[in-house]
Amino acid sequence: MNGNEDKQTSFEIAVVVSKQKEERGSDDCVEVLVLELKKIGLIVDRVLGLYEEFIKIAAPLEVLGRAAAELEIKKPTHIGMDLQFEWDEDDAFVRQPDGSLFSWCERFRCFTHLIYGIVNKRESVIILTYQNTEIKWKPGESLLEKLESEGIVKQVFPLHDEAKRKELLRTWALNWKDLTRQPIDEIYTYFGTKIATYFAFLGMYTRWMFFPAAFGLTLQLVDFGLWQLFMLPIFFMFVILWGVMFIQFWKRKNSALLARWQISYTTGLDTGFKYSDKERSSLQSQVEHTKRMGADKTREKAAFQRDEWLGHLLRFRNDAVVISSIICLQLPFELAFAHLYELVASDIMKFGLTAIYLFTIQYLTKLGGKVSVKLIKYEKNKSSESRADSLIYKVFGLYFMQSYIGVFYHALLHRNFTTLKQVLTQRLIVSQVFENLLENSIPYLKYSYKKYRAVHKKKHENGSSKGKVQVTSRVEKEYLKPSYSASIGDELEDGLFDDFLEMALQFGMIMMFACAFPLAFCFAALNNITEIRTDALKLLAMLKRPIPRASATIGAWLNIFQFLIVMSICTNCVLLVCLYDQEGKWKVEPGLAAILVMEHLLLLIKFGFSKFVPEEPAWVKAKRIKNAAQAQDMCSKQLLRSISGEKKRE
Amino acid sequence: MNGNEDKQTSFEIAVVVSKQKEERGSDDCVEVLVLELKKIGLIVDRVLGLYEEFIKIAAPLEVLGRAAAELEIKKPTHIGMDLQFEWDEDDAFVRQPDGSLFSWCERFRCFTHLIYGIVNKRESVIILTYQNTEIKWKPGESLLEKLESEGIVKQVFPLHDEAKRKELLRTWALNWKDLTRQPIDEIYTYFGTKIATYFAFLGMYTRWMFFPAAFGLTLQLVDFGLWQLFMLPIFFMFVILWGVMFIQFWKRKNSALLARWQISYTTGLDTGFKYSDKERSSLQSQVEHTKRMGADKTREKAAFQRDEWLGHLLRFRNDAVVISSIICLQLPFELAFAHLYELVASDIMKFGLTAIYLFTIQYLTKLGGKVSVKLIKYEKNKSSESRADSLIYKVFGLYFMQSYIGVFYHALLHRNFTTLKQVLTQRLIVSQVFENLLENSIPYLKYSYKKYRAVHKKKHENGSSKGKVQVTSRVEKEYLKPSYSASIGDELEDGLFDDFLEMALQFGMIMMFACAFPLAFCFAALNNITEIRTDALKLLAMLKRPIPRASATIGAWLNIFQFLIVMSICTNCVLLVCLYDQEGKWKVEPGLAAILVMEHLLLLIKFGFSKFVPEEPAWVKAKRIKNAAQAQDMCSKQLLRSISGEKKRE
Repeated sequence: MNGNEDKQTSFEIAVVVSKQKEERGSDDCVEVLVLELKKIGLIVDRVLGLYEEFIKIAAPLEVLGRAAAELEIKKPTHIGMDLQFEWDEDDAFVRQPDGSLFSWCERFRCFTHLIYGIVNKRESVIILTYQNTEIKWKPGESLLEKLESEGIVKQVFPLHDEAKRKELLRTWALNWKDLTRQPIDEIYTYFGTKIATYFAFLGMYTRWMFFPAAFGLTLQLVDFGLWQLFMLPIFFMFVILWGVMFIQFWKRKNSALLARWQISYTTGLDTGFKYSDKERSSLQSQVEHTKRMGADKTREKAAFQRDEWLGHLLRFRNDAVVISSIICLQLPFELAFAHLYELVASDIMKFGLTAIYLFTIQYLTKLGGKVSVKLIKYEKNKSSESRADSLIYKVFGLYFMQSYIGVFYHALLHRNFTTLKQVLTQRLIVSQVFENLLENSIPYLKYSYKKYRAVHKKKHENGSSKGKVQVTSRVEKEYLKPSYSASIGDELEDGLFDDFLEMALQFGMIMMFACAFPLAFCFAALNNITEIRTDALKLLAMLKRPIPRASATIGAWLNIFQFLIVMSICTNCVLLVCLYDQEGKWKVEPGLAAILVMEHLLLLIKFGFSKFVPEEPAWVKAKRIKNAAQAQDMCSKQLLRSISGEKKRE
Repeated sequence: MNGNEDKQTSFEIAVVVSKQKEERGSDDCVEVLVLELKKIGLIVDRVLGLYEEFIKIAAPLEVLGRAAAELEIKKPTHIGMDLQFEWDEDDAFVRQPDGSLFSWCERFRCFTHLIYGIVNKRESVIILTYQNTEIKWKPGESLLEKLESEGIVKQVFPLHDEAKRKELLRTWALNWKDLTRQPIDEIYTYFGTKIATYFAFLGMYTRWMFFPAAFGLTLQLVDFGLWQLFMLPIFFMFVILWGVMFIQFWKRKNSALLARWQISYTTGLDTGFKYSDKERSSLQSQVEHTKRMGADKTREKAAFQRDEWLGHLLRFRNDAVVISSIICLQLPFELAFAHLYELVASDIMKFGLTAIYLFTIQYLTKLGGKVSVKLIKYEKNKSSESRADSLIYKVFGLYFMQSYIGVFYHALLHRNFTTLKQVLTQRLIVSQVFENLLENSIPYLKYSYKKYRAVHKKKHENGSSKGKVQVTSRVEKEYLKPSYSASIGDELEDGLFDDFLEMALQFGMIMMFACAFPLAFCFAALNNITEIRTDALKLLAMLKRPIPRASATIGAWLNIFQFLIVMSICTNCVLLVCLYDQEGKWKVEPGLAAILVMEHLLLLIKFGFSKFVPEEPAWVKAKRIKNAAQAQDMCSKQLLRSISGEKKRE
């Protein structure tokens, strides 16, 4: 109950409100907000900034614990079962790696529940004032939501923990000599599961990358004489084996991480066994709905099956729309650009063309992202993570075409490996180094500009004579920093989307053209070593602290990596044919080609179909989940008492 | 407690002992056995046969219940959680579809536990007599095991339930007009999960077979004119799609069946979450062993990992041995036979050659089975079902080569589809009809011969004058019937092996040569309709009642079916190339061919590797299982009381 927990009472959430100039009465809405926050047991600290006032919030452990009990958060206990949290029986629950009771993700959820849970409990409307305007706080309405909709509360964001941040900067972001080693447990404690999983993946990916990088370098430097002819196919085999093993061992590592972080493991990691409470209750209401509809079981089953297949159908329709629009709209566009680029002779024209192209794809990608988000709204995805996964698949299709079709055009048109190598080098080195720089400098520039503008404006208002207007408070500086957001929009994904996308595109580039350019693995390895540290730096120093996400797998990206491996088997075969058949002797007749295409299509269907139709019918799954939840609810309290009793006796 | 349960006191187990002629004292071992059986509450009925005496055993529900509680059998409760059975709280547990408390599989386990659990509880050796010889029953020794080792107890086998058997004969085995419909729940009640799963699979397979059969028939009968050229590839696509969908929908059906039979579902059906008690305790002792070894967790983890990888290594070594011996020994033999068969001109020689061949492969298959069983003993398979699966993979490799390599030889050598069709027709119709006949007549002939010999011998002994020596008692007739055993030996598999093997070989034959002979699906459909009823007849009328098996999936056969689908994609491509390229114009250069082979190999590795390295490390799995078991043990009693209390209040 003490020791470790005392440390947690640092300020973790900030509410930003506009600064007011006049004196304020007791019915001022900001004053009421602060009063109400204090009333529910939160510790409040108010800081004045240049234009905003910052309400920093901290919570004693007990307040968080009671909120967790209200939210009915399920937490792992010492006997390995997830049970509903109860404040009085907190000894029964497993502690975090750093000794605290709640993870950052759970704390954030409790905070949100607490501050958005301030409602008008009286029967009548309470009149609040804000700079002479009246605000009507209706009974049962959340105060914070009301103030947000009125524009008085500008933002609610999680605060960095200065001590931990500095520690992480020292041991992680600036600790270059560790190469791929990272303090994953500390990252998990500070940023939550999803971001820690990303860095664990990035670290393992980079570590594994050393093997093909060494092989690639050897191929480049050593002359194998007679064996030279066989080295490329051997390299190809090696690289594919490497990729397959990497993915499988990552899955093992992921489940080991889940075990370490005490997250209850279910064999189907993403099959949604671990529902959040909201989703479970919606499922249960669905179950009850169908029960009310007809008491007999067959009708219930039929309802579930109808629902399941409707979901599949909607998903299928959306995927068909996305895929056909990529093929019918994007593919011709990309090919047209690649072709035009070939035709144009002068360098200036080429430069202009590239500029126009870059501008257009920026716009197209944004459009594609928006369309995808709209489409996903019509899908029946059960959790927000599965919605995010659905978005990732759709948007990745776009990026896939964009990144690789041009390279392919060059490879197949010219059958010239030297130019292909040039294109690849250019893409890999220039774009990746450039991106790494941009990734870090843009947030800093944004922050600097915002700070400069705020200070400048203030100076102007105060009259130019008085100097020394500065952004001094830490919370205001954090407020001015950009948030960790995705380039395709904030609705379903955060900045992890861009980081994963970068990694996946790199993986595709080096794997799919492995035979053409073995040295690429070296560049990628070097790039990834810097990527680890610059991403860490970005998260720790350049951006606001990101909102933690509960998912502890890399989700859709795993399937994308696997897809890229299969693709690279096919593309490398094509490349090898081009390489060894430069005289065009091996004529592939249309009949044979058609049969080969058909075979590959069927293989794809064979291995892809299981993704489309799940093994477990929805009604079986619903029954299982209902049963498991029922069992846990029934024995939860009894179990808890006996477990915590046992613990105390120890 | 009554009504339904009274019915269960029919005789379900028979113990066969040699008949004795003399009068017997009270220390006669058979008398003691009967006395002890009665003492533990079993109902015993003794029947005299020609040479044997039959002790029929029945058990009141309470005796079984207490045995189940002793065995700590886990059973599903009304709240959906599996809990240890307790006799006093039997209301908490879910009933079987027919209203009884225990399934046949559970009853059999209790019976075995009861009758083999009769031990000498005294301090000293008890002297029993058997026809003047003395038998020393040592303290703590099982009486039945002792008598079995002395040869006095000849056999212990489960008895048919006459009423249910007749009912099933009427509604199932002789109910031809239902085509593929079967009373699966009744089969489950009578034969247990594994056999019911087999028939459910066979039924669904036959039902689905109608679609390609109809397509195949259309192809045969209708002339498509110009489209004729395209019909075969379309048929090929259709058949592969059909196979893929069939397998996926079978998985769904299987999980629906598990839900119906109240068998707790785990997403990884065969990942061994549902350990039998014995296996779980062995796992726990392993866990404790590693704990004793070193208290620190990292060493425990390392021990688990060593253990896991050693298991993989042993498995890999064995598989390598089997595969290499198939390729190096069996393949040349099969090719040599196929080649010789071509060379030999006269029909008599051909006939002789085939006879020698058939004789040799019989011997080779037996040998292969024995070697496989020996090899499997050195593997670290956790449960008897996974040992059986390992055997199935190994032996199927043998049968695969045997069945298909000859056909392939013909197909590729002659490139003549007419002879290929002849070979296929011959194999499909002749062998399958023949096999179906044999399958049913051999057990009957065996039974008749045994009966005849027994009666004849008896007559001879009694002197030829007295007539009317007959096998009259039902139990003796059943004793004379053959048991449901596999052709490759009884150690790990029962007769289901042969039934599944037949189905898998048929599936391979029709799928892999689909393009050469679309009509095959018709023959297969017709064959399977009869197969359902003849298999049912065999089980109900020709054989002893089989010993029930707990597994409720088709196990290794599912993967074999999936493998056959992938194989058939490749083989049909080859067939299509042969068909459309009869002039040999499409020259495939060695370079291109090598690249294609490499590509397919890599695709195989890509999709096969996940089978080799599991996603979840062994130590994570052990921890999960330990946790789950611990939780259940802790709350089991409390939960039980509250659930059964609730039920009573209803």
